[in-house]
Amino acid sequence: MLIDKVKEAIRDVKDFPKKGIVFKDITPIMLDAKLSNEIVEHLFQMYKDEKIEGIAGIESRGFLFGYPLAMRLGIPFILIRKKGKLPYDKIHHSYDLEYGSAEIEMHTDAVKKGQRILIHDDLLATGGSAQAAASLITKCGGELAGFNFLVSLDFLNGKSKLEQFTTNIESIIHY
Amino acid sequence: MLIDKVKEAIRDVKDFPKKGIVFKDITPIMLDAKLSNEIVEHLFQMYKDEKIEGIAGIESRGFLFGYPLAMRLGIPFILIRKKGKLPYDKIHHSYDLEYGSAEIEMHTDAVKKGQRILIHDDLLATGGSAQAAASLITKCGGELAGFNFLVSLDFLNGKSKLEQFTTNIESIIHY
Repeated sequence: MLIDKVKEAIRDVKDFPKKGIVFKDITPIMLDAKLSNEIVEHLFQMYKDEKIEGIAGIESRGFLFGYPLAMRLGIPFILIRKKGKLPYDKIHHSYDLEYGSAEIEMHTDAVKKGQRILIHDDLLATGGSAQAAASLITKCGGELAGFNFLVSLDFLNGKSKLEQFTTNIESIIHY
Repeated sequence: MLIDKVKEAIRDVKDFPKKGIVFKDITPIMLDAKLSNEIVEHLFQMYKDEKIEGIAGIESRGFLFGYPLAMRLGIPFILIRKKGKLPYDKIHHSYDLEYGSAEIEMHTDAVKKGQRILIHDDLLATGGSAQAAASLITKCGGELAGFNFLVSLDFLNGKSKLEQFTTNIESIIHY
């Protein structure tokens, strides 16, 4: 089963980024090309019959599977980046972190009015960045087709922040 | 020709990140799935007969084509990230920027002794980050199979920093 293989590849790293946190390290997946291709194919099968007209990936680990999936589906890939990285006309959205805040940006011409966008990131934790990404999409007139994550930390209940946009919230792996 | 289509997609943005600089914005390429797939296929054809055993992509735009190319070649993809992002045992390398310095990191177990690695990034400018990436690879015992960039700003002569590692330095687009 793909799920078992992905779970086996993900590495638990204790006390990162700080004491008491067990970090889910997905980088061993990238070292395994066969598994990586299987994940993209699995994601393609999940979404190929849905009406999705673009994938927005959140910098930077959201680029890893977001772009290959968009290429496989034959639809645009939209980069959602940290503040100060995108050069052209853009909109931004701030959101709270445990300590302080963060800001993400998107080019205003990357999403058209009514375009149905799937937001992708590697991991759903508290949902702050995915929620901010959804705000960017809707500010530009896009429609939320869904959220997709490789991994969801269900015990953090990030889903509750996202259900205001769409109930189509999927992850391959749940903890 | 692929080169013409890529050049047409790349957008010049004046005065970014600061006055007097013309920034090459590659994000319109990502909006074009057909062109994106053609680029990956072009890169695959360039490297399929070379002895390359891993691709190291430099965060974050180096992830965009680096990972799909690694998947297409069926070889590992190694993430080279900015300081503080990778959770496991790692090595780091600092390099000078025009103002101040930057530091990148790589997991020590991501590259094996003697493994032939192609370093990929979206853009070769002065070559500082690519040179730092090469230092990480060689510190881990890896061998430099080559450097690949989507775009090279030849007038900045970044290549001169990289030739100490290998003469196999390729870009699809040159300015």
